[in-house]
Amino acid sequence: MIAELISVGTELLMGQILNTNVQYLSQKMQEFGVDVYHQSVVGDNMARMVESIETACSRADIIILSGGLGPTEDDITKEAVAKHLKKPMVLHQPSADAIVAYFAKTGRKTTENNFRQAEFPEGAQILPNGCGTAPGCICFDGKSHLIVLPGPPHELKAMFESGVVPFLSTHMEKRICSRMLRIFGIGESFVAHELKDLIEGQTNPTIAPYAALSEVSLRVTASCPLEEDGRALIDPVVEKIRERLGDRLYSTEGESMAEVCVRILKQAEATVSVAESLTGGMVSSELVSVPGASEVLLESIVAYGIPAKLRLGVSEETLKKNGAVSPQVAAEMAKCIRERTGSTYGIATTGVAGPGPNAEGVPAGTSYVGIAAEGLTHSFYVRTSGFRNRVRTSVTLNALDALRRAVLNLQLPK
Amino acid sequence: MIAELISVGTELLMGQILNTNVQYLSQKMQEFGVDVYHQSVVGDNMARMVESIETACSRADIIILSGGLGPTEDDITKEAVAKHLKKPMVLHQPSADAIVAYFAKTGRKTTENNFRQAEFPEGAQILPNGCGTAPGCICFDGKSHLIVLPGPPHELKAMFESGVVPFLSTHMEKRICSRMLRIFGIGESFVAHELKDLIEGQTNPTIAPYAALSEVSLRVTASCPLEEDGRALIDPVVEKIRERLGDRLYSTEGESMAEVCVRILKQAEATVSVAESLTGGMVSSELVSVPGASEVLLESIVAYGIPAKLRLGVSEETLKKNGAVSPQVAAEMAKCIRERTGSTYGIATTGVAGPGPNAEGVPAGTSYVGIAAEGLTHSFYVRTSGFRNRVRTSVTLNALDALRRAVLNLQLPK
Repeated sequence: MIAELISVGTELLMGQILNTNVQYLSQKMQEFGVDVYHQSVVGDNMARMVESIETACSRADIIILSGGLGPTEDDITKEAVAKHLKKPMVLHQPSADAIVAYFAKTGRKTTENNFRQAEFPEGAQILPNGCGTAPGCICFDGKSHLIVLPGPPHELKAMFESGVVPFLSTHMEKRICSRMLRIFGIGESFVAHELKDLIEGQTNPTIAPYAALSEVSLRVTASCPLEEDGRALIDPVVEKIRERLGDRLYSTEGESMAEVCVRILKQAEATVSVAESLTGGMVSSELVSVPGASEVLLESIVAYGIPAKLRLGVSEETLKKNGAVSPQVAAEMAKCIRERTGSTYGIATTGVAGPGPNAEGVPAGTSYVGIAAEGLTHSFYVRTSGFRNRVRTSVTLNALDALRRAVLNLQLPK
Repeated sequence: MIAELISVGTELLMGQILNTNVQYLSQKMQEFGVDVYHQSVVGDNMARMVESIETACSRADIIILSGGLGPTEDDITKEAVAKHLKKPMVLHQPSADAIVAYFAKTGRKTTENNFRQAEFPEGAQILPNGCGTAPGCICFDGKSHLIVLPGPPHELKAMFESGVVPFLSTHMEKRICSRMLRIFGIGESFVAHELKDLIEGQTNPTIAPYAALSEVSLRVTASCPLEEDGRALIDPVVEKIRERLGDRLYSTEGESMAEVCVRILKQAEATVSVAESLTGGMVSSELVSVPGASEVLLESIVAYGIPAKLRLGVSEETLKKNGAVSPQVAAEMAKCIRERTGSTYGIATTGVAGPGPNAEGVPAGTSYVGIAAEGLTHSFYVRTSGFRNRVRTSVTLNALDALRRAVLNLQLPK
């Protein structure tokens, strides 16, 4: 099965927006085991769009078009599909009614133009839009299926889940089920090496690694007949991976490190406070990005300079003897912020984000994380390199990983 | 003049990476006044790549290919171009020497494969790679120019600037010059309305608006004969825009709001400290992302809950009387953090990030920014909506804008 993706919009050709839809759709096709050999972008121009559709239909079974479903004269994706199908455009009354209701709810009146969003090529299967006014559709030209989705990413994703996943599942007579595993503390090549036999030996489920800054993800994907349970295929493979990677595997449900921290702190009825130097609020901001963080995060202090570190309670002696970027200061910062707030855990960062060395001559990238709890004061060196914000992101993840390890009673980095 | 962009790589078709190169190249083409009607992505497959090149050459004057210049057998972009040109591949000795020198510097030996990166279609103009081992090239098939660039974004950008800009400038017998204006506090449609006559009336320079969350950018681009100064064309238009938009225009050099704040604080020899509730470290983290922030940011406290706000020094009475999400608490937080650190300015945020209302029933999106300085204690309501992190980002920008306004003695929001 071969799919081809066509993104529609002059704003993409002009570089005004980044095409994240095509990455999302490519990943989904990958999950469904559908091959993608071509992606293309075309502007709001009828001749070029019809030409792109003809070309795609000549070489793919499924063509996914995204964008160009708005109410203006520029939005011509469905008309282009109708031209390819040699079918007229017809009004879909339930969609027209939904548009009237949507506008009425917000106290506005519909104009003639709005009803263009309720018109589809004759014979199309309509995909309702739960997040906006533009429904999508699925058409068939006798050989290929054409799936038309809206351009705004949150609408496209919601419609893919609600409308395209069921279509593909039926069409493919198989069900796709996947779990995303998140790993911290080892690189992609090391993960690939440790799991080489599993990755190469597995065909169902498949194991696909993805690398991000300081992190590796593995997507484990199974396809199975509709009536069977994909998890039954996936779970034993996840267990094998866990045996190999141990506690470096921090989520088997695709959670971010901050999401894991907030969840396990809640479960332990524990709290945390943060003292940050080089990360400058990033550790705290990551935690706060998780809904419900207010239940576990008591306070965070960005103690950037020496006076701020003294106000936090770090002793002048520790600072003088070891310098602000030292394991001793990281540990003391964690201890002080915990004492200040009475939180279960205190975590701290100190280091040199760069681009140059700090005033004391410590080179960029040198960083320490500190952690404190009842009967625990610990700190460790973090090896980082790269640009300023790369260093900060890496240290932030290391600090959150230390918190996770402390909460779960796992071994802390030395 | 028409360009077409072809991105090469199976990892793009599988959705493993986001195609940022194509946005960068599209923006550059836009700046050079070159139209882009088609973008496409093709995998590491000879037949499909040659077919894509043929199609592109049939309808464009310039074809930019990116990716597929690595040393392995999978990397076939230059071979595909050679097939299209019906030319043999030949070794470019200076590139081969550069590769040997590069490896020698890092103490490694070159293998036979590495020299594939020094082979090009006969007659190609070579573009040296200042950031990696893969040079690019420019070829001509008698009708269209084919420009081949490496896939890693930092290599592609550097080579575009060093090799493609001079080529385009010569080829086009014109020079392109542009300035990026950044605007805060009014929406894209309002900017477009206020500048309608300028945007529509201007042909050289052109004015192109770009919208981002809570911000609008305008790129003013002039093309002029090589010997003339593009700035002389641009500057009067920038002044006209400044007259219309006033102090909502916060940078005419493309700086971010945080970069402007750090720069003007340094110029004023002033300092700032931050007290954050709903933004949870984001204001501070934005400032710290700017190199040199340590000179101006004294301290930041994320005072998320009531006890943390009391520790910061907000009075129990103010909290009880007005609630934690109130203009009074925002102002008092700013005042307290300034008094704690002795900074010139104190800024503060409080509000409800969502998704739901807070414990006191204040709805999501309700937010206040506070600012304090010598003889100044002020706070204002920020209107926001949307997802949790959208609210936080918007409040962060409002807080930084208030800081900018205070430093520059501009009117603060009411």
